[in-house]
Amino acid sequence: MAKLGPSIDELISALRCLPGVGPKSAQRMTFHLLERNRDGAQRLVQALSHALDNVKHCQRCRILSETELCSRCNDDRRQQDILCIVEMPSDVLAIEQATQYQGQYFVLSGHLSPLDGIGPDALGIPKLIEWLDKNTIEEVILATNPTIEGEATAHFIGELARTRNIKVSRLAHGIPLGGELEFIDSSTLSHAFSGRESL
Amino acid sequence: MAKLGPSIDELISALRCLPGVGPKSAQRMTFHLLERNRDGAQRLVQALSHALDNVKHCQRCRILSETELCSRCNDDRRQQDILCIVEMPSDVLAIEQATQYQGQYFVLSGHLSPLDGIGPDALGIPKLIEWLDKNTIEEVILATNPTIEGEATAHFIGELARTRNIKVSRLAHGIPLGGELEFIDSSTLSHAFSGRESL
Ligand SMILES: [Zn+2]
Ligand SMILES: [Zn+2]
Repeated sequence: MAKLGPSIDELISALRCLPGVGPKSAQRMTFHLLERNRDGAQRLVQALSHALDNVKHCQRCRILSETELCSRCNDDRRQQDILCIVEMPSDVLAIEQATQYQGQYFVLSGHLSPLDGIGPDALGIPKLIEWLDKNTIEEVILATNPTIEGEATAHFIGELARTRNIKVSRLAHGIPLGGELEFIDSSTLSHAFSGRESL
Repeated sequence: MAKLGPSIDELISALRCLPGVGPKSAQRMTFHLLERNRDGAQRLVQALSHALDNVKHCQRCRILSETELCSRCNDDRRQQDILCIVEMPSDVLAIEQATQYQGQYFVLSGHLSPLDGIGPDALGIPKLIEWLDKNTIEEVILATNPTIEGEATAHFIGELARTRNIKVSRLAHGIPLGGELEFIDSSTLSHAFSGRESL
């Protein structure tokens, strides 16, 4: 597309790893960074490089974390016997912002998708099973997205919990079908969360 | 907003230097990069860092370039006596893609904007005057954006050319008012370009 030299073309191409960025906006971003905001670009290099080196996953709940255990898993004041299962780290933030929930989380980092080769192992299910077996969990809240894949994943995990005699709930209706959790407004999400239904 | 640790928060904040990226998409990009595409993120670090080190401006037309003179300025086969003035490097690419133009370019990297302290010097006008004085230029094509600032800038440069007895033209009507050149479809732009009007 562009013909401005290899470094510029490579930058345009590399920017396309960002979600929602097509060739046109990648080009626009490249010109903006090199033409108008080199300080910002330099800061982005540092921040991204630093994050890549330092951000891992919490050993317990699998959320992105700079420490072995994330701040929530390290917080003894949170309820230990209730566990909320989400697909993405952003879902944790959305629930924390919208609700009074003070229990534990488990981040799948995706949903079951056999066609893409994403099975239980990739979602950390063995670690989740260990958690359910080694701790006293009263309730598992299934807060995966209300998509076909999210429902299938919830069903799968629900069965794991039920066979261990753990109460299983799912976020209440009110979340639009096919919607993604992180884009739902806080009040809808809060309503759906507190009105969660036993499965 | 987020509470995931300083490295993650800093990355979210740094991504906002990208045009059109608000807090929500910066967070989304951060999770995507760290959770799903670390190879892409690493490539972006390399590409951006390399471009910052290597991409300067062409000494003649001021477009972004890795070499002292850009490929167009180095190309003897292009017409030397016709000069097209644009605001942004992306406008050069848009015109090259849409038209048969084979002349020279001069990139202002913006438009006159006294309130923001952007005067003739910031736009390289002294260099442009030198160009007009030291070379035989038959025509100056004013291809700034059809915005108030773009029109004012075109008027200013048009006067500089006219006092030197150089023919001055402006892209033809057909470009929607208030629009930005790089977002106009190729055929409209091509039409406007070949139908440019003498001023
Ligand atoms: Zn954790
Ligand atoms: Zn040049």
